[in-house]
Amino acid sequence: MNYGLWIQYDGTRYEGWQRQNRTQQTIQGKIEAVLSRMFDEPIEIQGAGRTDAGVHAAGQVANFHTDKRAECSWIKQELNRYLPADIGILDVKVMNSRFHSRLSAKEKVYRYRIGTEKEKNVFSGRWIYGIYEPLDLEEMRRAARLLCGTHDYRSFCGNKKMKKSTVRTVSDIAVEKKDGELWLTFTGDGFLQQMVRILTGTLIEVGQGQRKADSMIQILEKKDRQYAGKTAPAQGLMMMEVRYAAAGLK
Amino acid sequence: MNYGLWIQYDGTRYEGWQRQNRTQQTIQGKIEAVLSRMFDEPIEIQGAGRTDAGVHAAGQVANFHTDKRAECSWIKQELNRYLPADIGILDVKVMNSRFHSRLSAKEKVYRYRIGTEKEKNVFSGRWIYGIYEPLDLEEMRRAARLLCGTHDYRSFCGNKKMKKSTVRTVSDIAVEKKDGELWLTFTGDGFLQQMVRILTGTLIEVGQGQRKADSMIQILEKKDRQYAGKTAPAQGLMMMEVRYAAAGLK
Repeated sequence: MNYGLWIQYDGTRYEGWQRQNRTQQTIQGKIEAVLSRMFDEPIEIQGAGRTDAGVHAAGQVANFHTDKRAECSWIKQELNRYLPADIGILDVKVMNSRFHSRLSAKEKVYRYRIGTEKEKNVFSGRWIYGIYEPLDLEEMRRAARLLCGTHDYRSFCGNKKMKKSTVRTVSDIAVEKKDGELWLTFTGDGFLQQMVRILTGTLIEVGQGQRKADSMIQILEKKDRQYAGKTAPAQGLMMMEVRYAAAGLK
Repeated sequence: MNYGLWIQYDGTRYEGWQRQNRTQQTIQGKIEAVLSRMFDEPIEIQGAGRTDAGVHAAGQVANFHTDKRAECSWIKQELNRYLPADIGILDVKVMNSRFHSRLSAKEKVYRYRIGTEKEKNVFSGRWIYGIYEPLDLEEMRRAARLLCGTHDYRSFCGNKKMKKSTVRTVSDIAVEKKDGELWLTFTGDGFLQQMVRILTGTLIEVGQGQRKADSMIQILEKKDRQYAGKTAPAQGLMMMEVRYAAAGLK
């Protein structure tokens, strides 16, 4: 059986999605530990996106294979019971045997939340990067449009030794004001390591007047990380959704 | 000068509002430590409500006296800078010299959030008590109406040795469904120790069918803690607002 998991987490306490060694607190490690006890065999899960330390998810997807059969409702209930309060399972589904959470994904949506009001927000502060200064939204929107399309995003890749293709298609970067916050919502077929955070850091510098929107073209052309802006902090980023072709779901 | 502070906090990490000894983490202690450094003299603040360990606030009020003069905007900015991310100052105002955050209060509003949907909420779970079962709202509303008025609330007081009057006026207990949650909002001239949590625990038992709404009358008449329901957990409770007569504000 191939089970798909839809997962939410507050990443604040974790060293990211990907399991590393036994002492590190990772989302993947936590979920695998509970599943392995439930199925009484070692279970390995594949996540759609390897979120960095401190990054959150409202709609991460993962899948795992096992020869054992179990009710989806039981898997969901037991996972929610034994996982810590900051990791939640939204849904469990039986998937087509070839479904792979990452390889089958058609599109991913990430959102970056920036606090622009002076007020400190005690309740949502864990998921917001506070800038507390006015940003030039029109210039940010112009830059965002230039960053969309099918491009070699090497300048926006946090891994300088990346050997595989750094070409990706970003179909949309929405820049929206929302209750004292600025939301940057990125939709694309895939994102390189730290790409959303580097795009966000660069767009913030545009909003602050440190860069012009037009300069996005040169940054893309340079294919060199040093030309893009700072990597925005992890806490403002949330993985929102992974989209699959209907055929990928059983 | 008499300064008024409007304060928010996520109480999860704290042992309540009230300063106790040096090693305990309390909201009052944290704020006093920063103010004392800022004013270079020991500052003591008076809070409108002594929230329990784990209880949150969206609108706690406190005040303090000092002979020194400072701009309200500077006090707010410095407090927000040096306080941890889970304590925020919304506003600082110069008050009438006789203003006392607790003694001048006319009304207080507390809200208790109950999670009624099966879904685990990773993001607001810190401020919700998850019941995850259907509750009989109509019976709860009938019970809530019987609990309002001017009564001796000794049966709903967590301090069994309370020597002062346990008569209070509760003007409203609203029972509302809100996005997969149930909100109980309590308005009154003051609340006894753990009173909102014991009222909530009792109302939950009514909603579960363990008690009838009519039995509220007997519980009030008994004037004995053992007749009321369980004390609902601290995490679901938030102090929302403290109301003052206009004259109390300068």
